[in-house]
Amino acid sequence: MVKPTRSSDASSEQRTEFISCSAVAHSSTANLGPGFDVFGLGLDAFEDTVTITRGKKIEDSVPHVNLTLSGDDIETISPNASENTAGLVVRRMSYDLNLNGKTNWALDLHISKKIPTGYGMGSSAASAAAAALAFDGLFNLQLSKNRLIKYAAEGEIASAGTIHYDNVSGSMLGGFVIVRSAPEIDFVRLDVPNDLFLAIAVPVMNVPLKKTAVARSVLPKTVFLDDVIQNISNASTVVAGFALKDTKMIAKGINDLIVEPSRKHLIPGYELVRRNALNEGALAVTISGAGPSMISVLDDEKAASRVANSMAEGFLEAGVKKTKAIVCRPSEGARIVDVSN
Amino acid sequence: MVKPTRSSDASSEQRTEFISCSAVAHSSTANLGPGFDVFGLGLDAFEDTVTITRGKKIEDSVPHVNLTLSGDDIETISPNASENTAGLVVRRMSYDLNLNGKTNWALDLHISKKIPTGYGMGSSAASAAAAALAFDGLFNLQLSKNRLIKYAAEGEIASAGTIHYDNVSGSMLGGFVIVRSAPEIDFVRLDVPNDLFLAIAVPVMNVPLKKTAVARSVLPKTVFLDDVIQNISNASTVVAGFALKDTKMIAKGINDLIVEPSRKHLIPGYELVRRNALNEGALAVTISGAGPSMISVLDDEKAASRVANSMAEGFLEAGVKKTKAIVCRPSEGARIVDVSN
Repeated sequence: MVKPTRSSDASSEQRTEFISCSAVAHSSTANLGPGFDVFGLGLDAFEDTVTITRGKKIEDSVPHVNLTLSGDDIETISPNASENTAGLVVRRMSYDLNLNGKTNWALDLHISKKIPTGYGMGSSAASAAAAALAFDGLFNLQLSKNRLIKYAAEGEIASAGTIHYDNVSGSMLGGFVIVRSAPEIDFVRLDVPNDLFLAIAVPVMNVPLKKTAVARSVLPKTVFLDDVIQNISNASTVVAGFALKDTKMIAKGINDLIVEPSRKHLIPGYELVRRNALNEGALAVTISGAGPSMISVLDDEKAASRVANSMAEGFLEAGVKKTKAIVCRPSEGARIVDVSN
Repeated sequence: MVKPTRSSDASSEQRTEFISCSAVAHSSTANLGPGFDVFGLGLDAFEDTVTITRGKKIEDSVPHVNLTLSGDDIETISPNASENTAGLVVRRMSYDLNLNGKTNWALDLHISKKIPTGYGMGSSAASAAAAALAFDGLFNLQLSKNRLIKYAAEGEIASAGTIHYDNVSGSMLGGFVIVRSAPEIDFVRLDVPNDLFLAIAVPVMNVPLKKTAVARSVLPKTVFLDDVIQNISNASTVVAGFALKDTKMIAKGINDLIVEPSRKHLIPGYELVRRNALNEGALAVTISGAGPSMISVLDDEKAASRVANSMAEGFLEAGVKKTKAIVCRPSEGARIVDVSN
């Protein structure tokens, strides 16, 4: 593994050898109850690895990105770079950084996909985050994490239809992240309690291709002030819980009066999953991102395992044929795992 | 100063000597921008002292509370115990705790008032908090702080028309407080940064008697989801700032898209005060509670003094005849200062 130095345009011209860079980014959950579009949490349940390899020089101002995929469950992912979250990131970064004037490198982009796609586990966001970091590493750009998150979030357009930062920031930075959108995009990252365990049930079912767009279409345009007050109180409690490393306090704040009530009907077995989780001792239960995965908070690993199984049972009772039960912890941030020259 | 022990009903019957208890509670600010009805912050700018003195036994199930007041600016405060925030607290605690069966003590309640009344400085809340604590001390009830805050909040009905907990919890607990209202009333208290200074301007003007009710009547019933998302992000940033003891982060979060836009027209000179404060280096400016006082956040005492004066100038420019400029720090919680037997 060689750490490349920043190549000037001139030296890039002279460079003939391949350079490749691989980066890993974890799954994530968004919202955590009251923090719709604001809270992200990296999760070590799954990870995607993105490798970008520099090919030939091409006399064309348009980036050439050749996308390949490996892993389970990739048939729903577009192999067209301009329709793929990681592909969009790489194309956009190539354009913006104008790496080589009117000349571009042909880039091979490979995604080794382990995060289930379309279940609210931040799959597209992780590919986007890993792609942004790998591109940065490949050309040794040393962009700030904030800038990389912005690129990754633009890639999310391919899957969600709108830019959103909660999953990408959780995936890129790891730990718990508060997304700030005004006056400029910014992030507050907090460490997590050592006893925070997440129990997740992922129902294996046909998820609509534009699932996030559907999940957004059911949201209310306006909200009662009384519900806003309660959501602000709950979100504040979640943040205080992370800051004080108090898992029970985090759980106390996980109650959403705005988004979850309007989305729960989209999830088969929502009530059963929730009831089972609480019966088995979950401290809090909510939808993971736009769903349909459900996520519970616990402060004990064994209890988390029981809860994950009970949640999976809930989906089965509701007629879902197959469900994955997962216990995980918050993750570290995305990282470069290989650079070769 | 004698610390009394819990008197049983029997021993109370035999007790003939006077017992009095004095408690002090500080001023406070509510909302801090995005945390309407959720955030309270105790402020050492002013304090009220409440002394309750036990008189004769009376054969009547109705408490007899004789209220007296001293201090500046007390002409707007009702001397009728059932219309006064501290009086209501003492009457309610007497009833609820049924201290002496069908017999009651005549109680003298004295409020030494130093907090300006009706300006969004938590004046009524401080009297209520001090009264609850003094009553608890007088009869050595050893009620939990949560219970005392609930009593104090009920007293707030006299001034605000509705129960609200932000000022009383800030005044009772000191520091920064998150009010939780579901599934039950509860409070999360955080310590404050050592470099947090508040610059406040209190415009001396005719404040309507039911000022808080007026300030609540202008609030929107429903809120756009996009504004909710931003307020939740800002409130989360304020909480993270307190938890991380980062004054600049607190200030970054003090921006309210919901309540402040609909209230600012009630405050003469709002724009001038805000502009002056920011020009002098305030990190953030907002309305203190329901106003009309305005409050700025700073991380430097000298700058805070300049900002407070510039804010007072803003009110004067807007035609307010007299304005108090104050620099203060977050306060400690309410405390008993004297118990005599």
